[in-house]
Amino acid sequence: TISMKAIQKMRCFVVYVSKAATKTQMEFDYDGPSMKTSVPGPRSQELTKQLGDIQNVGAVNFFCNYEESRGNYLVDVDGNRMLDLYTQISSIPIGYNHPALLKLMTNPHNLSTFVNRPALGILPPENFPDKISESLLSVAPSGMSRVQTMACGSCSNENAFKSMFIWYRNKERGQTAPSDQDLSTCMVNQAPGCPDLSILSFMGSFHGRTMGCLATTHSKVIHKLDIPSFDWPIAPFPRLQYPLEEFTRENAQEESRCLEEVEDLIVKWRQKGKPVAGIVVEPIQAEGGDNHASPDFFRSLRNIARKHGSAFHVDEVQTGGGTTGKFWAHEHWGMDDPADIVSFSKKLLTGGYFQRDELQPDKPYRIFNTWMGDPSKNLFLAEVLNVIHRENLLEEVTRSGKALLKGLYELQGQYPNILSRARGQGTFCAVDICDDETRNSIMLKARDKGVILGGCGDRSIRFRPALVFKEYHVHIFLNIFSDVLAQLK
Amino acid sequence: TISMKAIQKMRCFVVYVSKAATKTQMEFDYDGPSMKTSVPGPRSQELTKQLGDIQNVGAVNFFCNYEESRGNYLVDVDGNRMLDLYTQISSIPIGYNHPALLKLMTNPHNLSTFVNRPALGILPPENFPDKISESLLSVAPSGMSRVQTMACGSCSNENAFKSMFIWYRNKERGQTAPSDQDLSTCMVNQAPGCPDLSILSFMGSFHGRTMGCLATTHSKVIHKLDIPSFDWPIAPFPRLQYPLEEFTRENAQEESRCLEEVEDLIVKWRQKGKPVAGIVVEPIQAEGGDNHASPDFFRSLRNIARKHGSAFHVDEVQTGGGTTGKFWAHEHWGMDDPADIVSFSKKLLTGGYFQRDELQPDKPYRIFNTWMGDPSKNLFLAEVLNVIHRENLLEEVTRSGKALLKGLYELQGQYPNILSRARGQGTFCAVDICDDETRNSIMLKARDKGVILGGCGDRSIRFRPALVFKEYHVHIFLNIFSDVLAQLK
Repeated sequence: TISMKAIQKMRCFVVYVSKAATKTQMEFDYDGPSMKTSVPGPRSQELTKQLGDIQNVGAVNFFCNYEESRGNYLVDVDGNRMLDLYTQISSIPIGYNHPALLKLMTNPHNLSTFVNRPALGILPPENFPDKISESLLSVAPSGMSRVQTMACGSCSNENAFKSMFIWYRNKERGQTAPSDQDLSTCMVNQAPGCPDLSILSFMGSFHGRTMGCLATTHSKVIHKLDIPSFDWPIAPFPRLQYPLEEFTRENAQEESRCLEEVEDLIVKWRQKGKPVAGIVVEPIQAEGGDNHASPDFFRSLRNIARKHGSAFHVDEVQTGGGTTGKFWAHEHWGMDDPADIVSFSKKLLTGGYFQRDELQPDKPYRIFNTWMGDPSKNLFLAEVLNVIHRENLLEEVTRSGKALLKGLYELQGQYPNILSRARGQGTFCAVDICDDETRNSIMLKARDKGVILGGCGDRSIRFRPALVFKEYHVHIFLNIFSDVLAQLK
Repeated sequence: TISMKAIQKMRCFVVYVSKAATKTQMEFDYDGPSMKTSVPGPRSQELTKQLGDIQNVGAVNFFCNYEESRGNYLVDVDGNRMLDLYTQISSIPIGYNHPALLKLMTNPHNLSTFVNRPALGILPPENFPDKISESLLSVAPSGMSRVQTMACGSCSNENAFKSMFIWYRNKERGQTAPSDQDLSTCMVNQAPGCPDLSILSFMGSFHGRTMGCLATTHSKVIHKLDIPSFDWPIAPFPRLQYPLEEFTRENAQEESRCLEEVEDLIVKWRQKGKPVAGIVVEPIQAEGGDNHASPDFFRSLRNIARKHGSAFHVDEVQTGGGTTGKFWAHEHWGMDDPADIVSFSKKLLTGGYFQRDELQPDKPYRIFNTWMGDPSKNLFLAEVLNVIHRENLLEEVTRSGKALLKGLYELQGQYPNILSRARGQGTFCAVDICDDETRNSIMLKARDKGVILGGCGDRSIRFRPALVFKEYHVHIFLNIFSDVLAQLK
């Protein structure tokens, strides 16, 4: 419920979105940050202490008042209102408390979906095929008409990997059924039933933290230390120079080097008796430091996968959902046949993955768990997609992203000793800071001035606003960021 | 919303629950099964065909009308109303559309929790410490005051395993920080950074299907075939004779044999250079065939773990939440110090695990992901726990369970060629059928008469009703089950 105080503080304004026809729409949002205390304030500190008796709170930034948060603004429990460019680790698609989502909650026909969570794989609700058609299938990547929902990003990648392993072994067996030896050895974790297959991943990648995913994650020590893993091949990811268009020759060379290494590793691991069943890659390495590669790189990689009989899995958990200006980041590659599997989560509100027909396991219960997703998240997703369409949010993202990147270039010119390597696609932007300490200091100073940022890689700041982040939000951000940088000098 | 038709069909009755003071309560439920078609009916078949274009539908039983379902009765899209003894793979705690849960949805103060899913690990909502205290901590197992929520059962076990690995390596290192070699090798999946540690599990166990969990799951071929795994030790789980009290001597011998094997494996794997960091076990093996063991067995196992420096992880994903007559099945062991980690999901509506203080990782971000659970599920759980308390549901479960097991014993006496090994704790009961084919035939016939059952193991039927399954529901079930058996003869 919206308090009167909050309504009074809100600003109601008209946004003109369409280019041809002028479309008017009302949006609730605040008119700017408003800071009452430094962050975390006293109430956040008190709650952190309280939660510390129950959990490790070392990662807690502050406590939030989600009821009072609106649009691009996150409000904390001390009454601070901050422009949010991190959006819950890039997982809030259309801002806080979007009226369309609140309205959905008040529809009595939706109650039962929240109260009775089904075992989707065996007893789906009547509206499940329709809801999944109007939500996920309406944004299916090119070449894919099959989708499986899961509860989170890690589960999505784990099950995507399993689908690739099953597909690869079925391909090896041809028409032959699994042997008795396959069946008996798999029960005790031994080959050939549990085969020595591998997934090729890239240094700097992040694909999740469950043990299968973690074997393909190579972004930070803290994720991996002390956890047993698999001997799987790890290729270098191109380390490009930015702006990309100014270093096309150097970057192409660097990409060739990495692609050669990929092929070498595939051959080497086949010789080791651990064939590469699949290659997994992010369109932009996010957690690992917002590392980009060219459409050419990904097209070549897809071809290498095909040439060696490996499946090609594009992990769009962070890049998916519109933030690059296209619904899927891999659409920028311009291919009809970009991937065998595309996984998602975060802004899609449900985890899951799309797959080509031949990647679907041959038998039921091979990819299965109790919940297999959550239909209440599909309800929200369908409405989010309506809003994206109705409010032309992909166009907005493209426009805001250009303004953001332009602003970063300008600041980078102004502060060459602090900022470098500004880069981005849509609002999925980042900039490097001279060192880790300065990065963290900038982020804290910006927060105290009412802007929430996230870090990634060794010393990058990543920008992950919601899709409702407009050009004027960019300017609010740039003004504050500029002030912070000025004070640093 | 409840249709008038549904209300007319419902029966409103008074249940006397308390022994001392007579407590009156009203409950909505139907008065019995009502079948219009065989199952799946035509509408279910049509929807299955539709969904088949999107997903593998080989496991789909039928499509449900969750809005019309009530209490112990699941209604399908063809208007069939069935008494549900499987409850979405044991994941519905207090029946369908419980008024307390519907009421929670109409409270406008809860809206924001559904609409704005936070990244709990960094930006928790204001009420999070209170909600987690009044929900999960109010049912914390003995010796545990720390709890971590996760999105599902597999993620819970994966992260519990990771906590055990981290704890074990920290113990090995003592006060020493991780070496440079630890840090560099972990990034490329190699020891010592990614150490050769193992988890000991039992044949017949089920702990989930993501790759770490799957290495400890040994119940069915279909779960494991074609997925790479770890070389971890697998001990035999006692194969007891039932009723347990009639075979105490034989069962004790069998349990000793298994415990000896556990110790042998721990020693053997230490010698192999893959020390056992943790032992994971279900209080009753569920998916693997409802295999019980005695409190003595588990007490000894816990002591073996302690003796060898391994953590002891009790997986209560299926047994937890009250269905055995105690909130946690391991409470039947009567120990002050039963486990180091207790994981849960299903009836708890959120995944997660409790842990002893020393099992909590030393640093933030070691156990972490974007969502770290879902506060909207904590809201429901708090209300479910209120209902369990208010309606004395653990006593009800004990009473219904006794009636159910008594009925199964009687039918087993009557049909010795069909039924054997009736067993159970609370309503967490099972019975073996002479063979797999007969088992499946019984389950389908029962369904067409309005009773939903689940299978487990090679040829068992498992009973997993909700906690609101009362003695008169037991009799409705037994009457129908008896009819089915009579027709089989």
